[in-house]
Amino acid sequence: MKILAIDSSGMPASAAVLEDGVLAAEFTVHHRRTHSQTLLGMMEEVRSVLDLDLNSIDAVAIAAGPGSFTGLRIGSATAKGIGLALDKPLIPVPTLEGMAYNFYAAKQIVVPMLDARRSQVFAGIYSFSAGGEDPLEVLMDQAPVDVKELCEKLNEISQSRSQDLILMGDGAVSYRSLIEETLRAPHSYAPAHLNEQKAGSVAARGMDLAALDDGRYLEKAADHRPVYLRVSQAERVREEKLHGHA
Amino acid sequence: MKILAIDSSGMPASAAVLEDGVLAAEFTVHHRRTHSQTLLGMMEEVRSVLDLDLNSIDAVAIAAGPGSFTGLRIGSATAKGIGLALDKPLIPVPTLEGMAYNFYAAKQIVVPMLDARRSQVFAGIYSFSAGGEDPLEVLMDQAPVDVKELCEKLNEISQSRSQDLILMGDGAVSYRSLIEETLRAPHSYAPAHLNEQKAGSVAARGMDLAALDDGRYLEKAADHRPVYLRVSQAERVREEKLHGHA
Repeated sequence: MKILAIDSSGMPASAAVLEDGVLAAEFTVHHRRTHSQTLLGMMEEVRSVLDLDLNSIDAVAIAAGPGSFTGLRIGSATAKGIGLALDKPLIPVPTLEGMAYNFYAAKQIVVPMLDARRSQVFAGIYSFSAGGEDPLEVLMDQAPVDVKELCEKLNEISQSRSQDLILMGDGAVSYRSLIEETLRAPHSYAPAHLNEQKAGSVAARGMDLAALDDGRYLEKAADHRPVYLRVSQAERVREEKLHGHA
Repeated sequence: MKILAIDSSGMPASAAVLEDGVLAAEFTVHHRRTHSQTLLGMMEEVRSVLDLDLNSIDAVAIAAGPGSFTGLRIGSATAKGIGLALDKPLIPVPTLEGMAYNFYAAKQIVVPMLDARRSQVFAGIYSFSAGGEDPLEVLMDQAPVDVKELCEKLNEISQSRSQDLILMGDGAVSYRSLIEETLRAPHSYAPAHLNEQKAGSVAARGMDLAALDDGRYLEKAADHRPVYLRVSQAERVREEKLHGHA
């Protein structure tokens, strides 16, 4: 099976090709340029260095949200475009499950967090279990959550499982001082090389999801929608204006 | 601190830039083209997408061996060239310690193996310990070793530590059936997205080594030599001819 994977859910843009047990290519860039400037060029670079015939891929795995609205739309549009043009299915991968795959086999509970502003993060809580059908155990499905509430929840889960925590993602960086105030459970922060989104991890999670679900996880390109998990700021501002909330 | 990292020790060629807690870019390609065809182009791609002024880097981390003779020479020559031209130090990273960093925080004992032909591998045995000064505990330093001997050693270490194993690298793929014959300890194989060399991991290990050793780990570019860990096939054949061994 050959999978093209894309993650542009946050600051990094990343593209990868995973084929029959080998990561054929992975290109990740975290830079101030927008994804609309970088993503296509990076994908073309990957295609060209591999002499890749895009027709030979079996599916496109896409970090399907949550994340930045614009980033998700660019990734989604790109994945849908390729899927529609070549009649290939998409594999939508929950963004935070893809990130957790950076820490495949971690002894700690893995907690990816994306900064959602206003002391909120998109977060999920995961653990890698050996031997299960799914290597990823979902302790809390990805959701928007207040940082303090998340830390209280992590205190409980860490204690009940006697398992330390490893925190990752830009949310863990942005809210580190707030986390240090509230999180009593033993924890550490991801080192830089594994802290953020990587398309290789999205490809690996996508392959596992597709296998788990007998292919029912595959989606038609035309049907794919990113999962924002909450309304955009523009919609929120409009709503507040209409109903007079501050 | 800004580090440029290169790994061309095996089939994958990889280049990365790690800066102040962020993986700014990482580009990895596993393809049949030779590193002399791909590595410089990949590095130029990384430089260009980051608008990177190479003068702004503090050091060049290089997967310093063991590995393929030709691959190591290309990587070494490239790193030395950049170091000499810009008067930057090199950080030589033991290839298998860099690979182990793909599994930073793994609950298992991490065993990277590079295929060294004739049922031999270059292997190291590592464990990630929380709280130590060095996150990487070296249970066996990297060395050329017979696959069966390695498995016997792993049986002992795994039992004495009550810790499972995770095997990675092209050696674990090449000798899987031989491993299955000899390895009784509970073990699993790395998933594809983390199985092989990545320059981001080399950068992270290089940064940790440099910090551990108060900068004494830094090397002048002119002084750098790859660590082959054994003589090349050409030298071996010559030696056999001279001394009449089969």
